[in-house]
Amino acid sequence: MTDATPPQTAPHPLLDPGACASPNPAGVRRIAVLTSGGDAPGMNAAIRAVVRTASHQGIEVVGVRRGFAGLHRGELGLLGPRDVANIIQRGGTTLLTARSRTWRTPEGRALGAKYLREWDVDGLVVIGGDGSFHGAHFLQEEHGIPVIGIPGTIDNDLYGTDYTIGYFTAVETALDAVDKLRDTGASHERIFVIEVMGRHAGHIAVDVAVAGGAEEVFIPEDGKPVSDVVQTVQESVAKGKRGSIIIVAEGYAGGAQAVGDAITAGTGLETRVTILGHIQRGGTPVASDRILASRLGEAAVFALMEGRRGEMVGTTCGQITHTPLHVTWERSKDVNRDLYRCAKTLSV
Amino acid sequence: MTDATPPQTAPHPLLDPGACASPNPAGVRRIAVLTSGGDAPGMNAAIRAVVRTASHQGIEVVGVRRGFAGLHRGELGLLGPRDVANIIQRGGTTLLTARSRTWRTPEGRALGAKYLREWDVDGLVVIGGDGSFHGAHFLQEEHGIPVIGIPGTIDNDLYGTDYTIGYFTAVETALDAVDKLRDTGASHERIFVIEVMGRHAGHIAVDVAVAGGAEEVFIPEDGKPVSDVVQTVQESVAKGKRGSIIIVAEGYAGGAQAVGDAITAGTGLETRVTILGHIQRGGTPVASDRILASRLGEAAVFALMEGRRGEMVGTTCGQITHTPLHVTWERSKDVNRDLYRCAKTLSV
Amino acid sequence: MTDATPPQTAPHPLLDPGACASPNPAGVRRIAVLTSGGDAPGMNAAIRAVVRTASHQGIEVVGVRRGFAGLHRGELGLLGPRDVANIIQRGGTTLLTARSRTWRTPEGRALGAKYLREWDVDGLVVIGGDGSFHGAHFLQEEHGIPVIGIPGTIDNDLYGTDYTIGYFTAVETALDAVDKLRDTGASHERIFVIEVMGRHAGHIAVDVAVAGGAEEVFIPEDGKPVSDVVQTVQESVAKGKRGSIIIVAEGYAGGAQAVGDAITAGTGLETRVTILGHIQRGGTPVASDRILASRLGEAAVFALMEGRRGEMVGTTCGQITHTPLHVTWERSKDVNRDLYRCAKTLSV
Amino acid sequence: MTDATPPQTAPHPLLDPGACASPNPAGVRRIAVLTSGGDAPGMNAAIRAVVRTASHQGIEVVGVRRGFAGLHRGELGLLGPRDVANIIQRGGTTLLTARSRTWRTPEGRALGAKYLREWDVDGLVVIGGDGSFHGAHFLQEEHGIPVIGIPGTIDNDLYGTDYTIGYFTAVETALDAVDKLRDTGASHERIFVIEVMGRHAGHIAVDVAVAGGAEEVFIPEDGKPVSDVVQTVQESVAKGKRGSIIIVAEGYAGGAQAVGDAITAGTGLETRVTILGHIQRGGTPVASDRILASRLGEAAVFALMEGRRGEMVGTTCGQITHTPLHVTWERSKDVNRDLYRCAKTLSV
Repeated sequence: MTDATPPQTAPHPLLDPGACASPNPAGVRRIAVLTSGGDAPGMNAAIRAVVRTASHQGIEVVGVRRGFAGLHRGELGLLGPRDVANIIQRGGTTLLTARSRTWRTPEGRALGAKYLREWDVDGLVVIGGDGSFHGAHFLQEEHGIPVIGIPGTIDNDLYGTDYTIGYFTAVETALDAVDKLRDTGASHERIFVIEVMGRHAGHIAVDVAVAGGAEEVFIPEDGKPVSDVVQTVQESVAKGKRGSIIIVAEGYAGGAQAVGDAITAGTGLETRVTILGHIQRGGTPVASDRILASRLGEAAVFALMEGRRGEMVGTTCGQITHTPLHVTWERSKDVNRDLYRCAKTLSV
Repeated sequence: MTDATPPQTAPHPLLDPGACASPNPAGVRRIAVLTSGGDAPGMNAAIRAVVRTASHQGIEVVGVRRGFAGLHRGELGLLGPRDVANIIQRGGTTLLTARSRTWRTPEGRALGAKYLREWDVDGLVVIGGDGSFHGAHFLQEEHGIPVIGIPGTIDNDLYGTDYTIGYFTAVETALDAVDKLRDTGASHERIFVIEVMGRHAGHIAVDVAVAGGAEEVFIPEDGKPVSDVVQTVQESVAKGKRGSIIIVAEGYAGGAQAVGDAITAGTGLETRVTILGHIQRGGTPVASDRILASRLGEAAVFALMEGRRGEMVGTTCGQITHTPLHVTWERSKDVNRDLYRCAKTLSV
Repeated sequence: MTDATPPQTAPHPLLDPGACASPNPAGVRRIAVLTSGGDAPGMNAAIRAVVRTASHQGIEVVGVRRGFAGLHRGELGLLGPRDVANIIQRGGTTLLTARSRTWRTPEGRALGAKYLREWDVDGLVVIGGDGSFHGAHFLQEEHGIPVIGIPGTIDNDLYGTDYTIGYFTAVETALDAVDKLRDTGASHERIFVIEVMGRHAGHIAVDVAVAGGAEEVFIPEDGKPVSDVVQTVQESVAKGKRGSIIIVAEGYAGGAQAVGDAITAGTGLETRVTILGHIQRGGTPVASDRILASRLGEAAVFALMEGRRGEMVGTTCGQITHTPLHVTWERSKDVNRDLYRCAKTLSV
Repeated sequence: MTDATPPQTAPHPLLDPGACASPNPAGVRRIAVLTSGGDAPGMNAAIRAVVRTASHQGIEVVGVRRGFAGLHRGELGLLGPRDVANIIQRGGTTLLTARSRTWRTPEGRALGAKYLREWDVDGLVVIGGDGSFHGAHFLQEEHGIPVIGIPGTIDNDLYGTDYTIGYFTAVETALDAVDKLRDTGASHERIFVIEVMGRHAGHIAVDVAVAGGAEEVFIPEDGKPVSDVVQTVQESVAKGKRGSIIIVAEGYAGGAQAVGDAITAGTGLETRVTILGHIQRGGTPVASDRILASRLGEAAVFALMEGRRGEMVGTTCGQITHTPLHVTWERSKDVNRDLYRCAKTLSV
């Protein structure tokens, strides 16, 4: 399922601790930055890192508001280091984000390119998920504007990086909800079926299942039939467990409701289905997301300075990596299978 | 709607700061305690206060597990001061709770009374909501066992006390979710319709609306038509507000989904409906709930010692009050109308 | 210790739910607002409420930056309803605050008055503690500018209001720290002595002691000798308690360090002294602080419209009250003695 | 400073997803587990994982209370899967921990070995830091009892694992405090000097500095003179920054107080020194710590089953690794130098 080919890893020639201004072979003078797609906690930390790294290197930054929708409408403006003060801890994105149908047309992208040229921009940093990277890819293909992607999505479903910005916070938010439901579940000896985000990927679900001590977890990557849960619940009751927690990724066939219905049909036990929904997108980013965003924001600016284009910056084993944008969506990143197995064993 | 007759307020003869053991005119030697109905954060703090106050007064405590269901099945056991150590900060209830159909029958209650007599209990403290108080009321009526109620329910819908245990924590939990959704709402300039708990009462909804800076709030106590929201949203958009938050109590006709549908039908704008659900019941209790629970737990023991029976202990303006159990459900407690009005004004 | 004379309570003629614009007998057209003294969580919610209530009534608002220091330097500017969007959940104060020596001189205040007259201001709302109210009082006395105070201080030490803005959040922050220390205290069976804020008042200390299940609490209002703690700790050890929590208000003679030293000297046991410090001032305000701030911000504008001056708005038993500024510092508000007693009983 | 030799990485023959019971070449029938040294959030999750993995493999578990101190006093008892229910989310350690001078003597260790033999234990899992690993190492050397270490310490200062259990939670707790102080720092335009844990290592300090947007960070690994901070602060003021955050690891010469004094001496500006202290040890563990603990607890049982001894289990790049115990303290793990550099750049 996962493609074993590793993303391209390159040592950073620019990461010279002694250097104040790094070599800038691409001669970058001004770059633009935007956030696109669903918001994710840590996007502001990434914006801040892009602006401040650039500033430190003598490069100007143009902020684009409302993602690609704002780009083709010309919502651009200079961003200085002080403009991004005191935003590292804020959820959402201060540059705003929006979905844009116009951007999916060549005409829309041509309009955006025109604005970028008017602003004399040498490259564009796009913070978002795979949909956003598609939009960036076509902009570069059609108009020759170098783009670098920063993975910003809570789902962690991009190939080429161990983690995406927002993922860690989403896991903590979902886990906090599970802890709360467990209080009630244990007090009432009830079964809670909890749906977490992840339309195509079970990363959040698996992490939350292990950390939340769940009895069972269902993810879209897996063909596990919903009927499996019935046996798990019956065994759990037989062992005398007080209350059960079942985690379901939203992309699993039928979602939490289907799982809850199956339990009731198969065991006669009452269940409580809870869909956590959009709260998983918000909130103050946790340290791991702010740190990841800070490193990737810096790496994106360095990448443009090195003359890179059409790539996503990411981290693999703590090292900065670069992956062609199209690879990030063509290949899929499997969930951590050790954890997936572990979730089950530890709920005995 | 609200009955203006105040609950009976009595100075506490037992609250003598200098006294180590207080007068015990009723000659209470041993009491029982149980939690019943939906769990609420702070119930453990109330259990702890009952046990430790009693212990301090030389009275023994019998803990009943699983509420009235456990009572008619004989799940009783002695609880000492050390048994309630380190639980003040825990959500849920360590005594467990359950719904019981059997308790609604005279036979069920007779069984429970038999166990209480076998354990030689002089009174019973019931921590729960109005359903639980009904159960307690009939036990006393039919079997003469003195009962004292402690209001433990997140809904704050009991007459005779300004606040119920669990309410403050539920408000914080809902508010935290609203803050998170606001991050996304502001970033995407979207409308969020958020359903909070409150089947018959809008207390949580009103507090959350004011504290969360919501544009509009819908509560069951009010006949406000759902169409009102359309104008609010249109004005809000006209003023250039980025994103809107609409709060709906679950008991409002149709709930959040109906409100979301009305907005879309009336304005053509997309909405996101989020039902917070059971997470509002869980979590570490906030200070206000632990303090309220500590005071009411103490007051319940004092009430039995004074010879009171069939009453709920509560607080009004920071003073301990006593209200006949039947009054707590016969009269209704209105939401804070000043706040309700304020919610609207401050979202201009 | 506490003066029994209640603050003046007045029904609000302006609180007519049906009225969109309220009567404005004082003919107020423009008001100023500033925050002063130590910052407190909820100050932003109060600023927002002042601005939006005024706007709703057709009154303009001038924001003064950096408190009285900014006022005598002329740091004034108009504040509209959109300027206070999305700040209700933020800690600190967006208007900034500062200590000012110049303001303590008649010349400094004369400069401030000049600016207020230049801006054609009909009244000033001061959000702060008793030091700030002194500054406001003299401004009104000397220059005739009507001032209304809003109690904003975490210490809750102002007479004339049950609670001050920031107090609830400070209690939660301190309690959260106590819960964390309890984890370690219980695991190591250690004694933690924790100093909370409160230079002259033990309100935070008493609340945290009850909610945190502390063994002992020391407050400045009380003459309890530090040696008392030795016996408490010895009894606690004798009872087999795992770990002890002792709460000390910073204003208690010698603070936490003195108490820790006394325990070690008297029992030979090791203690860990922790001074929570300024973290108690920060953080997202809890619901109770936002709600209080919203109500008091509204009440302050109404007070100026009614022609009130030289008063603090507060709440007593949930009702808005008005107290002459000098009374707020001349009389003292005792800690809740029931709670103080309760803290001790429940730690048995 | 860091030794480049990687810890030994071995594929897990036992990690066969299909296997219910794994091969057990060492024929392990019963193991013991204890927590030792300073408590760390996630220790309970590790205990749970050890007990449940063992149970799943048909191995019995003996829990030792109070670490090595309890071991030489014979505080042992069987632990079943239900005994560790509902502890994954709790801070501290339910097995308790203690420092033991007796254990540092051969006589003390002989006593402990005697108890382990009496309980017929085939191996011991020790959850703790390097002091605890020393104790475990000598037990194995002198008495031949196989020991496996699990890294549990908030300082993250053990060679042979990317992260230690408790580290992630400590970083979040410190960061939360920094966010709160920033509110006040920004409102008052003040300089906060914040001391975080780390007697010999700056891992927490560097993470918190980057995630907290600090202006400067001081760690024990670095010879940076305290005078450097004076220039940083002066530049920061010159740039018009509102408030500054300086992070100091407790092991940096003189700690936060020395840094604060240097700033005041060099710039004349007032500073606020805050020592976060023991709160960093407590609290509900974050997801990353629970997941790490779950994986390492499982790996420790597998290691004993494979016949491994005298090793610490850890993770490197997400893979389980094994490192001889003496190597974990002989080599030192450097802070992330990229992050250390990044902290400085991004505060421009």
